[in-house]
Amino acid sequence: MPTESLPVTFDDVRAAAERLRGIANRTPVLTSRTFNALTGRAVFFKCENLQRAGAFKFRGAYNRLAQLTPDEKKRGIVAFSSGNHAQGTALAAKLLNIPATIVMPDDAPRVKLDATRGYGAEVITYDRLTGNREAIARQLVAERGATLVPPFNDRHIIAGQGTAALELLEEVPDLDAIVSPIGGGGLISGCAIAAKALRPQIAVYGVEAIGADDAKQSLARGEIVHIDPPTTIADGIRTQSIGTLTFPIMRALLSDIVIVSDDEILDAARFALARMKIVVEPTGAVPIAAVMQNHIPASARRVGVIVSGGNISGELLSSILM
Amino acid sequence: MPTESLPVTFDDVRAAAERLRGIANRTPVLTSRTFNALTGRAVFFKCENLQRAGAFKFRGAYNRLAQLTPDEKKRGIVAFSSGNHAQGTALAAKLLNIPATIVMPDDAPRVKLDATRGYGAEVITYDRLTGNREAIARQLVAERGATLVPPFNDRHIIAGQGTAALELLEEVPDLDAIVSPIGGGGLISGCAIAAKALRPQIAVYGVEAIGADDAKQSLARGEIVHIDPPTTIADGIRTQSIGTLTFPIMRALLSDIVIVSDDEILDAARFALARMKIVVEPTGAVPIAAVMQNHIPASARRVGVIVSGGNISGELLSSILM
Repeated sequence: MPTESLPVTFDDVRAAAERLRGIANRTPVLTSRTFNALTGRAVFFKCENLQRAGAFKFRGAYNRLAQLTPDEKKRGIVAFSSGNHAQGTALAAKLLNIPATIVMPDDAPRVKLDATRGYGAEVITYDRLTGNREAIARQLVAERGATLVPPFNDRHIIAGQGTAALELLEEVPDLDAIVSPIGGGGLISGCAIAAKALRPQIAVYGVEAIGADDAKQSLARGEIVHIDPPTTIADGIRTQSIGTLTFPIMRALLSDIVIVSDDEILDAARFALARMKIVVEPTGAVPIAAVMQNHIPASARRVGVIVSGGNISGELLSSILM
Repeated sequence: MPTESLPVTFDDVRAAAERLRGIANRTPVLTSRTFNALTGRAVFFKCENLQRAGAFKFRGAYNRLAQLTPDEKKRGIVAFSSGNHAQGTALAAKLLNIPATIVMPDDAPRVKLDATRGYGAEVITYDRLTGNREAIARQLVAERGATLVPPFNDRHIIAGQGTAALELLEEVPDLDAIVSPIGGGGLISGCAIAAKALRPQIAVYGVEAIGADDAKQSLARGEIVHIDPPTTIADGIRTQSIGTLTFPIMRALLSDIVIVSDDEILDAARFALARMKIVVEPTGAVPIAAVMQNHIPASARRVGVIVSGGNISGELLSSILM
C-alpha cells in the first residue's frame, strides 16, 4: 500500500521533528558488542528511556499540544493514563503553558503520581474497579471546554512518535529492520511511516507480550480485535485494542508481529541494566527481548531497536537485579 | 607550568585516540534538564559507564598494551586489581591476543572475577589480609618475563584516559570546567592534559571522598602523601597515594580538589539511576555529587562531568534504590 493513502505522512513526521527540535532530547543510539556477539547481529538501540519524562510519549504529546489554537490552549487539556502518557503530556503542557488535568487510577505508583504533579498538572484519581476514567475525562472536557489528548489514536501524536525512527535512521541509515513494542500502535505507526519513507526496503517488526497480542490478532483477522485486560509485566502495552488510525498504518507497513514472554522481557531488562548500564522499563525491554530470543528473521543483520522507556519502580528494578 | 614539561603531552593523547578509534566506544555525552535546573548549570555527562568493560580503564589499558613489542606481547602481561583495571586490562589483552594474568583478592565480587575470566584472562587470587599482591605480580613478571601493567602511573595509560576528555571537548568545546574523580590520578591527569590543550582557560576540578583525600593532601603539602586504606563506598578511589607521574600533572593543571561524603555519592548515584536512567558505580557518582552539592565554584556555568564507570554489584544497586 502506498504510504500516501495513510492517515499520517512522512511530511507530518518531518514537521513534528521541526517542532521538537531543541525541546525533545535527541536520544543517543547505543550499541553493545556483547549483545551483538550474543545475537549475531549489529543492533542499534534508540534510547527513548533517556527521553524527557523517561519515554517516547513526550514526542507525540508535545507535537499534539503545540498545534492547539491559542483559545484551545487557554481552555486546557485533559488526558487519562496511569503511565508514561500522563508524564509526557504533563511535561508538554507545562512547557507550552497549557493547564493540564490528568486522570489517573488511585493505585498508580506514587512515583508516577508525584512525577505528573511535579510537572504542574492537576491529577484527578479514580477507583480502578468502580470508576470510569473515560467518563471522568469526558466530563472535564464538557465542563471546561478542554481538549482530550488521546494516548495514541491521533495523527499528530503518531507523527510525533515517528521522530524517534527519523532520528535513528538519520544516524544509522542502512538498517535492515526496526523493532518496536506495540501498545496502541502510536509508536510503531509513526516509526514505520518514517522508516519506510527513508528506506523503503526496511522491515518493521512489532512486538507484543503473551496475552497482549491484540495487534497480532487484529492484523490476522483484518479488523480491530478487542481483548481482555492483559496482565503482562510490560504495563505500557496492556492496551486492549489498537486504534482506527494505527490499524491501517500497521496493516500497510509491518512485516510481522512477534510475541515475547514476561520472563524474556525481564531477561532483556536485566541485560540492559547489567551489561549496557541503562535502566529500561519492561515495555522498553520488549523489543530487546524479541531480538535476544531470535524471534526476528535471521536475514535482518542490522537492526534498530526502539527502547521505548525507562520508567520503572524501584521495587521492580530491585527484583530484576536478584 | 607549561604542559610541555609534563610527562604526558597532548600529542600522546591524540596518538592514543588514533589507537582507540573504532575499538573503544565513543561514549555518549548525556544531559539532564532536571539536573541543570537543580544545579543552575549546564552539565554534560561523559558516560564512561557506557565504555567497554564498563569503565574508562579500557582506554588506558588498550593504549598501553597496543604499544608493547611483538616479543613483549608474546610473553604476556600481568596486572593486579580488584576492580575496573582488571576488566579493562583483560579485555584489552584479549583484543590484542596477549596472554593476561590478573591478580585479584579472593574476596573480590564474584561478578568482577567472572567478568575478568570471561575476557579470557587467567585470574590468580590471594588472601587480602595475608597476601601481598604486588609481590605475587612481581614474581610472575620475573618468572615469565611478563610486563606489569600498572593501574595509573604510566605515560601511555594516562594518555589513554585523556581521550575521554578529548572526545568530550570535541563534542562540547565551550566548557568552563571539567570535573573528575581522583583515585591514583590517571584519569584526571590525562583529561587535564587534553582539556587544557584544547581550551587553556578551562578549570579542572578533582573530587575525592572523605577519608580518601590523599591527592588533596599531596597538593597542599607539595609532596606525595601516603594515607591509611580509605573506607569510602567509592571503591575505585580507595588509592592510598597518587603516582610520581600523576602528581606533577595534577599540581600543574588542577584548579582545586573538593571532597564529597558517601551519602552525597549515593544520592548522586540514585539521581543518575532514577532520573537519568543510567547505572553509575559509586566512583562514577563522585563528580556528579560534587556538582549536585555545589562544591564547584558558581563561576563554572558549563561543566563537563567524567562519569568514570558503571560496574556495581546488584546488591549495592538494590540498596541504592531503597
